[in-house]
Amino acid sequence: MFENKETTNIDELGEFGLIKHLTNAITFENDQTLIGAGDDAALIDPKGNEVLVSTDLLVENVHFDMMYTPLKHLGYKAAVVNFSDICAMNAVPSQLTFSMAFSSKYTLEAIEELYAGVLLACKKYQVNLVGGDTCTIPSGLVLSGTAIGFNETKNVVKRSGAKAGDLLCVSGDLGGAYMGLQLLEREKRVFLEQKDMQPDLKNHDYIVGRQLKPEARIDIIKSLKELGIMPTSMMDISDGLSSEIFHISEASKVDFTVFEDKLPIDQDTFNMAVEFGIDPTTAALNGGEDYELLFTIDQKDYEKIKTNPDISVIGHAKEAGMKNELMSKQGNSYELKAQGWQHKNS
Amino acid sequence: MFENKETTNIDELGEFGLIKHLTNAITFENDQTLIGAGDDAALIDPKGNEVLVSTDLLVENVHFDMMYTPLKHLGYKAAVVNFSDICAMNAVPSQLTFSMAFSSKYTLEAIEELYAGVLLACKKYQVNLVGGDTCTIPSGLVLSGTAIGFNETKNVVKRSGAKAGDLLCVSGDLGGAYMGLQLLEREKRVFLEQKDMQPDLKNHDYIVGRQLKPEARIDIIKSLKELGIMPTSMMDISDGLSSEIFHISEASKVDFTVFEDKLPIDQDTFNMAVEFGIDPTTAALNGGEDYELLFTIDQKDYEKIKTNPDISVIGHAKEAGMKNELMSKQGNSYELKAQGWQHKNS
Repeated sequence: MFENKETTNIDELGEFGLIKHLTNAITFENDQTLIGAGDDAALIDPKGNEVLVSTDLLVENVHFDMMYTPLKHLGYKAAVVNFSDICAMNAVPSQLTFSMAFSSKYTLEAIEELYAGVLLACKKYQVNLVGGDTCTIPSGLVLSGTAIGFNETKNVVKRSGAKAGDLLCVSGDLGGAYMGLQLLEREKRVFLEQKDMQPDLKNHDYIVGRQLKPEARIDIIKSLKELGIMPTSMMDISDGLSSEIFHISEASKVDFTVFEDKLPIDQDTFNMAVEFGIDPTTAALNGGEDYELLFTIDQKDYEKIKTNPDISVIGHAKEAGMKNELMSKQGNSYELKAQGWQHKNS
Repeated sequence: MFENKETTNIDELGEFGLIKHLTNAITFENDQTLIGAGDDAALIDPKGNEVLVSTDLLVENVHFDMMYTPLKHLGYKAAVVNFSDICAMNAVPSQLTFSMAFSSKYTLEAIEELYAGVLLACKKYQVNLVGGDTCTIPSGLVLSGTAIGFNETKNVVKRSGAKAGDLLCVSGDLGGAYMGLQLLEREKRVFLEQKDMQPDLKNHDYIVGRQLKPEARIDIIKSLKELGIMPTSMMDISDGLSSEIFHISEASKVDFTVFEDKLPIDQDTFNMAVEFGIDPTTAALNGGEDYELLFTIDQKDYEKIKTNPDISVIGHAKEAGMKNELMSKQGNSYELKAQGWQHKNS
């Protein structure tokens, strides 16, 4: 990443110079912003809707490793993870504030690259970047995004609305981001041991992309609306399917049965899991960072989604007190754990 | 700060445990929050108004020093600096998201203390804490707040509305936070050299408080409304009076004359500046972190504020191109600089 090209120390610009330099590149993607970056606060027109707000931190060496994370991808991801939280309320993101604290190892060119990724995500998702803060930090890089979306209260979907009998659905496929991370970590170890080795990521664009450049499933939110489906509960999968099932289970006071053979797993994810000696089901259940949507729908809506290639029905809700369980391909029931799953008797 | 009392490692709770533990203490101070912390995003009712959003980062060893910053004060300040930005748009804050990244040196008790400060500020300012993110960081402490307020567009005051002839006003007094910082830094040096010396902060509660526990001037926003005054431009003073005058000057395309003898300086600030060999005027112009409001009003409103003890008229706006100047007590004109001021001929 930090190649030998011409670099500029950010101190030469100063804070205000840097902000002006970066915000010059902002273009508005929607008409809800009345005042953007450059005043004490942004002013936004909710157009009669209620306001959704969500915020996420990304920290170097905790959430990302600069050894294998391109800065533009990182900026893109830092924006998208915030957008995903707004989608998870059955809404689309409209505005973003984005703050960065960076150490002196980050040059102006590096920060520009990062910011370009944020702007690319904003362009793709038609979100306006309306503010933020920048400052130095003794070491590392910290990114803080806050996304704002709008919806009518009656269309907002919480985690708490699932009821017994509802179908449990997931968008896309699972475990890819986790297997991408395993691959990147392995190639990093190889590189650190033998610097003349080139990382072997070929033919693994899919899982590497799932890790480095996730997408927020706005398309699913729009599809559900077109299909006339109002999910009964919803959240996005950032920490792993199992963990999120427990969140919905707890908030909705229902338990879930999940069928192992219904878990959507991409072939590349499956193969890489086998190569690493990881059970693909475990990768799908506990992997995290897929940013797919997990939601429940009323059974009456099943016909509307049963042939949708982007949505898998993976289980159903039942009365609380029966525990969240995974029904294996062999037809055995295992108790699901927030992280992982165990035999009921263990 | 880190005394020998019982401490709890945060790892024992885990991220979800910590969030649940901290957010249990939240009480709502206003009725604009429909969904608070605990879902993917908060849902807020703007009640027909437009939405103001502002965000600030605070980083350990850049913005604060744990040697002399009580954690509760730090949490309070981290919330207040965000509230101040909403005030600076002629509105009052209503909602806050608050994120923390902390290293392993921070115990559960330390984080609780910090969070208690945030909640105290929310209570005082009747703001609802509606979300945030927590995570670990290899070293230090990073705080990221995003404040949301509401106002009708026609009542929002930008930096860009000042016109020639307008009066330049400031709330409260200036330079105190800066002199408080100088004092704290001096006592820290003394302590590091001679560990048995106790810091000598007595009789300096005012300036130390200005540095460690600033307030957002919601009272001024409310007063101006009661007085029927609509400022023509406004911002808050975080980086120093001079710097902020340049922001309004640039945004409004006017220049300002500021009168040295009108600068409001508290006696404690003045005395401490003299003790440190700093020109009190320099402390007032460049000190920063006072979080007072800087604003312009039409001359016709002068009668309404001329006896107000919380508002000082410190100068006036003139046509652009005449440069921002400081008129000294001796009647000499000096060109103002964004940071500092110099002789016109220098």
